[in-house]
Amino acid sequence: MGYLEELLVKEGLSLVGKRVSRPDALDKVLGRPLFTADKLTRGMLWAKIVRSKYPHAIIKRIDKGKALGVPGVLTVLTAEDIPGENQIGYAIPDQPLLAMDKVRFVGEPVAVVVAENEEAAEKGAELVEIEYESLPAVFDPLEALKPVAPRIHESGNIATTTIIRKGDVEKGFREADVIVENTYKTQRQEHAYLETETVIAVPEINKVTILACMQSPWLIRRMVAKVLGYKQSKVRVIELPAGGAFGGKDDMIPMIAPIAALAAVKTGKPVFLMFKRDETFEASNKRHPSIIRYKSGATKDGKLVAVEIEIIYETGAYANRGPFVLWRATAHAAGPYEVPNVKVDGKLVYTNRVFSGSFRGFGDPQIHFAAESQMDELAAKLGMDPVEFRLKNILKPGLTTTCGQVVDQSVGVEEALRKLAEKINWEKRKREIEEYNRESKRKLKGIGVACAYHGISTSRGAPDWSAAAVIINEDGTITYKGGICRLGQGSLIGHAKIVAEILGVPLSYIQIEGPDTDAIPEARPTHGSRGLMTGGTAAADAASKLRRNIVRVASEMLECKTEDIEIKDALIYVKPDPSRNIPFSEAAKELYVRGYETAAYGFYRAPKRFFDPKTGLGVAYGVYVYIVNIAEVEVDTWTGQVKVERVHTAADVGKAIDPDLIEQQFHGAIAQGLGLTLTEDIVFSDGKILNNNYTDYVIPTVKDRVEVPTVVLVEQPYKGAAFGAKGVAEAALIPTPPAITNAIRHATGIRFKELPVTPEKVYFALKKRRGEKS
Amino acid sequence: MGYLEELLVKEGLSLVGKRVSRPDALDKVLGRPLFTADKLTRGMLWAKIVRSKYPHAIIKRIDKGKALGVPGVLTVLTAEDIPGENQIGYAIPDQPLLAMDKVRFVGEPVAVVVAENEEAAEKGAELVEIEYESLPAVFDPLEALKPVAPRIHESGNIATTTIIRKGDVEKGFREADVIVENTYKTQRQEHAYLETETVIAVPEINKVTILACMQSPWLIRRMVAKVLGYKQSKVRVIELPAGGAFGGKDDMIPMIAPIAALAAVKTGKPVFLMFKRDETFEASNKRHPSIIRYKSGATKDGKLVAVEIEIIYETGAYANRGPFVLWRATAHAAGPYEVPNVKVDGKLVYTNRVFSGSFRGFGDPQIHFAAESQMDELAAKLGMDPVEFRLKNILKPGLTTTCGQVVDQSVGVEEALRKLAEKINWEKRKREIEEYNRESKRKLKGIGVACAYHGISTSRGAPDWSAAAVIINEDGTITYKGGICRLGQGSLIGHAKIVAEILGVPLSYIQIEGPDTDAIPEARPTHGSRGLMTGGTAAADAASKLRRNIVRVASEMLECKTEDIEIKDALIYVKPDPSRNIPFSEAAKELYVRGYETAAYGFYRAPKRFFDPKTGLGVAYGVYVYIVNIAEVEVDTWTGQVKVERVHTAADVGKAIDPDLIEQQFHGAIAQGLGLTLTEDIVFSDGKILNNNYTDYVIPTVKDRVEVPTVVLVEQPYKGAAFGAKGVAEAALIPTPPAITNAIRHATGIRFKELPVTPEKVYFALKKRRGEKS
Repeated sequence: MGYLEELLVKEGLSLVGKRVSRPDALDKVLGRPLFTADKLTRGMLWAKIVRSKYPHAIIKRIDKGKALGVPGVLTVLTAEDIPGENQIGYAIPDQPLLAMDKVRFVGEPVAVVVAENEEAAEKGAELVEIEYESLPAVFDPLEALKPVAPRIHESGNIATTTIIRKGDVEKGFREADVIVENTYKTQRQEHAYLETETVIAVPEINKVTILACMQSPWLIRRMVAKVLGYKQSKVRVIELPAGGAFGGKDDMIPMIAPIAALAAVKTGKPVFLMFKRDETFEASNKRHPSIIRYKSGATKDGKLVAVEIEIIYETGAYANRGPFVLWRATAHAAGPYEVPNVKVDGKLVYTNRVFSGSFRGFGDPQIHFAAESQMDELAAKLGMDPVEFRLKNILKPGLTTTCGQVVDQSVGVEEALRKLAEKINWEKRKREIEEYNRESKRKLKGIGVACAYHGISTSRGAPDWSAAAVIINEDGTITYKGGICRLGQGSLIGHAKIVAEILGVPLSYIQIEGPDTDAIPEARPTHGSRGLMTGGTAAADAASKLRRNIVRVASEMLECKTEDIEIKDALIYVKPDPSRNIPFSEAAKELYVRGYETAAYGFYRAPKRFFDPKTGLGVAYGVYVYIVNIAEVEVDTWTGQVKVERVHTAADVGKAIDPDLIEQQFHGAIAQGLGLTLTEDIVFSDGKILNNNYTDYVIPTVKDRVEVPTVVLVEQPYKGAAFGAKGVAEAALIPTPPAITNAIRHATGIRFKELPVTPEKVYFALKKRRGEKS
Repeated sequence: MGYLEELLVKEGLSLVGKRVSRPDALDKVLGRPLFTADKLTRGMLWAKIVRSKYPHAIIKRIDKGKALGVPGVLTVLTAEDIPGENQIGYAIPDQPLLAMDKVRFVGEPVAVVVAENEEAAEKGAELVEIEYESLPAVFDPLEALKPVAPRIHESGNIATTTIIRKGDVEKGFREADVIVENTYKTQRQEHAYLETETVIAVPEINKVTILACMQSPWLIRRMVAKVLGYKQSKVRVIELPAGGAFGGKDDMIPMIAPIAALAAVKTGKPVFLMFKRDETFEASNKRHPSIIRYKSGATKDGKLVAVEIEIIYETGAYANRGPFVLWRATAHAAGPYEVPNVKVDGKLVYTNRVFSGSFRGFGDPQIHFAAESQMDELAAKLGMDPVEFRLKNILKPGLTTTCGQVVDQSVGVEEALRKLAEKINWEKRKREIEEYNRESKRKLKGIGVACAYHGISTSRGAPDWSAAAVIINEDGTITYKGGICRLGQGSLIGHAKIVAEILGVPLSYIQIEGPDTDAIPEARPTHGSRGLMTGGTAAADAASKLRRNIVRVASEMLECKTEDIEIKDALIYVKPDPSRNIPFSEAAKELYVRGYETAAYGFYRAPKRFFDPKTGLGVAYGVYVYIVNIAEVEVDTWTGQVKVERVHTAADVGKAIDPDLIEQQFHGAIAQGLGLTLTEDIVFSDGKILNNNYTDYVIPTVKDRVEVPTVVLVEQPYKGAAFGAKGVAEAALIPTPPAITNAIRHATGIRFKELPVTPEKVYFALKKRRGEKS
């Protein structure tokens, strides 16, 4: 990949690395972009899903009669109407599109009513009569693991397991001077996107087109094709911008697009399907709740010698992405540190609750909450400063990760931690806070640090690739068609900057378009923080191919050697004599006239990774993003209220294509991490969610916005990606919970091992410590 | 272009050359395809054009007041509302989108009413008050050429001129033993597509998308961008299948899409614009009426020595494509014969009638009507058989065309003429007919031959290229995205056969999709019989690139040399041991997994052509299609009715990708040629069309279907195109009129020099010949 090396050594960049205000910012503020629901036109049919009211039950009978009698209802579809496979399981074929024999959670789709309008669809859905035979249900993963527990799937209640066996933990613990062992618990989290899951399916001749907010166009295509019994070429998926996704739409749209497609194909009419907010709460994937037993040992001079970890991730009724979420947590279990002896055992456990799945961080926030809490507890026991202790163990080039992978490049976590600690004057700040606390009566302040790492893109040795397309139009403007979805993260703006940089034109020359499975080959999903790295590299590949053509045609036009051609600001000139020049647009036109290729597909190819299932060791990811958060909190000891005053953050991003876009990701990720740490939790009663709305499910609002006054961007370029850039979309969320709970520990001396750390928990914990009864 | 040579020598083809029934045939018969009007949804606005009622007038004042008062009318747009350039002239910037200062024909667009529904739009259009000052108008090109004629454009009434000066015609005529000189006239012809001009414009953020039936997506993009003042990347054009086009939609959609786009951008809502049938008649381009003075000379042994030709093509109010139509007629003026001395003078003349433009044959039917009538008249004067006389002069490799181009390959006109004459037993048939006529009282039969040639694609040394895209999906199905439009001609089916042939899969593996300017680079328009040759070659280029990848990945999987890989019927095997094989779908999946490129753009590059404007000499076209028609007629001498009993046809097509598709083109072209010869004519009164409907404008119906019992396909491959295939969409129309009039001449002895040859004309001509007064 010669062009990638060329990009790395390039100096005097015009766009890459610069802060460019988002071209779509004003439009978004003005509410101008069209989301999927805006594409609803009169004449489209409405689909409404009929859902299980039972957490675990056998379906005895479905009677469509009354529903079909509702004026405007055209059809009611059930499992028996599916022409292809009734199967939407991602990792394991355990999940039907529409429940066939039994239901496994409250909210599971059983039937679909298709009607001329919303009212008729809803009325019809109420009137579909389903006779159930209730089965005993299990709602707790520890209960589910007991031999007497109700069997949710025929194979049992463990969906998958993972292991890591690195070194010899028993020997490691024998060498340890201090050992800390704790059990940590994290809760379900809701993605809370503004826009709920929305799909439009348009039937054509022997074909169906899906328009939706999404993260995984080609997975949607595969699922729709499978359910309809179509070839992939007979399903077209067009991505529309999403009003938030955070992993939720990666899992959900492939699960509901086939429902809309089925309704469209059966009725011959376009079908609109949109979740109401309560459906999103009750029937969409959540962050995996976890129970993590974590034992860590270190020598008295502060070297980690062993960790032994048992991970239980609750996957709910279906495995969905769980096996991969659990694997990622397993592969990152020791945190961004060199630990010579690691033992991890992971279990993915079924319960009769809504299934878990992809969510920003993808298993890493839970495991880092445990790992980074442990680091502070070890430091405390050793009487060491948390930063100092971390620096003694932090990953550096040549050292190995949890699963034994030698990290050899773009390992900037030490630099990130050192620079951030220095920039905020960690030692001094810590002392100031401790001084303040000695004086303070009611409010206690604290400062906490946490580090994290996160493998970019997919793992387990699974194949990985990406694709994009660039067209140079005849007037010199450029159409960029990405394979990466527009979730609001601005990834494609990064790609466009890369294309503009390589072709030597201003960003305004680039028209950004999202994926369309008829127009570009599979680019794999927009998840795993891979959008910029893999999509941007594919964009760079396409742009580099076209740059060669532009340079060739310009050298003909300017009658000079190709090596003498330079392009800057849409002007092409001869380096030794810049007065000899032509506008980019003229060269573009000549590309056509002289028969050069005017468009190119670009591809990203992942480096080889591998995975030994016996030991869990291997090369898990091509590269990792590293991130450090330092949180400052104030705890109101009278109310238990925790206020996160600010979070400082530093990351090795490889190369910042746009610092603004990165900081926006940090702000959002920290806010989402704040909710996970302090307020968010799904409350069930008999498998039914009680807080299926934003009155009862508490997410941070704009008033809770956390200041992020310090951002340090470390740039240790990754040679496998365009300009060396890695991904950061998920990163800043991961260390946010432990940075906050470490700060609370600093403020109060109390270790909170269970999320969320609500005012009640803090209040009662403080009371308990004072020796009062709760 | 190594791959093109490879395709030429390939033997044992699976699909190319075979008759494959059209995959879309049944759907079309069942009315299932969705045309533009089918995409009209409630909520779209209607646009209605307010048209000039004057043939020539100054616009004094436009009052929108009353129209704006109509409930449902949202806006009335005129020239002053155009943000970009008010200019849609194709060859010459002489034509406004909306008339500004004056109008030049009845039907010219002056304003556009945009309303919530059709009724309001029509009502509003009636109420736009336009005050005109009438100017003297001119309706006849010969009148328009007089110095005293009203000036239609400031530059005068001649839009362009053409010349050819080959050899020395005066010397040529001195060598001639016989000379024939006649003046021929042809009329306006309406395209008569089932579907009238229809456009949908959808506004997006800083962008507009056009959906329409069309022939020239990128020209539409350019025109919309120009009128709106947008960059090309801000206009997306998506082709929808057309219900007939025949050149009409090549010119018209670029002229009306900007109107719909303007309305959409001004209102912020999707706009639907559809011509009613009377608008298509009155305001859409027509075949150029012609007046051709043709002088030909030959030696007594039957060698053509000179032709001198004056061509007048009436372009109506605007030049539109006229300069190129006239040029094509000029470049083909001597017919498919070697004539050493040629002098041509062409004039494109303005009148105050609806503008002329592209129409199947693009100027060649008119000139061949003259040229081939002359050939028969010369043969008669020489006492030679028309076939024999033609064979003495016919083009062969190494000889030169009208404009001095040496034709060196794929020159199968001699073979076509010999084989067709032989197959229908020309001599015998002629004698039989003459015998019949001696006996017949009322009905006279005749047989006539005509040859033609037609340069493929564009000329005048203009740049020419095409593009296409092929994606191999992960399940082995293939998405083919053409740059060529679906006019009903099946061109993309031909491309798909080429792609399937090259990749070794059945045709059913290929999903055919039409152009989208956001998905493929400019492929230039679908005209000039270039769809199969240029688009198919671009498809072959893309498919060949991907075949190399498939072969490579298969050789890795099958552990053999790439040279040993063969692909047939979606099975990939090792030639020396076919038991070692894998399905195509597995190799497709591995393309992705192993990081091969899974999609490719393909390009067609035209050979160099040039044109000397001083002499008109040069290399006009890369290659020509050659065609021979033999018509058999029966003339009812009592009524003047001419019945065309059958037309035999032969053509050198280079290579028949699908003989069925070619024959379908022949049938359609001969029917359209029949209308041109016998019935069709636009009748005006003071510049207003009187027969703006199919009651008064007579086209052949299914009852007038001409039998085409003999089709001879000559295959002299053209090395510049995939499999050697040339285009045939227009060909069979061109020699149809002279074949029929030559047959009428054979039947009656009367030379009809003016089209259409209506029963009235025949009746009165027969009467006159008998010495009776009319």
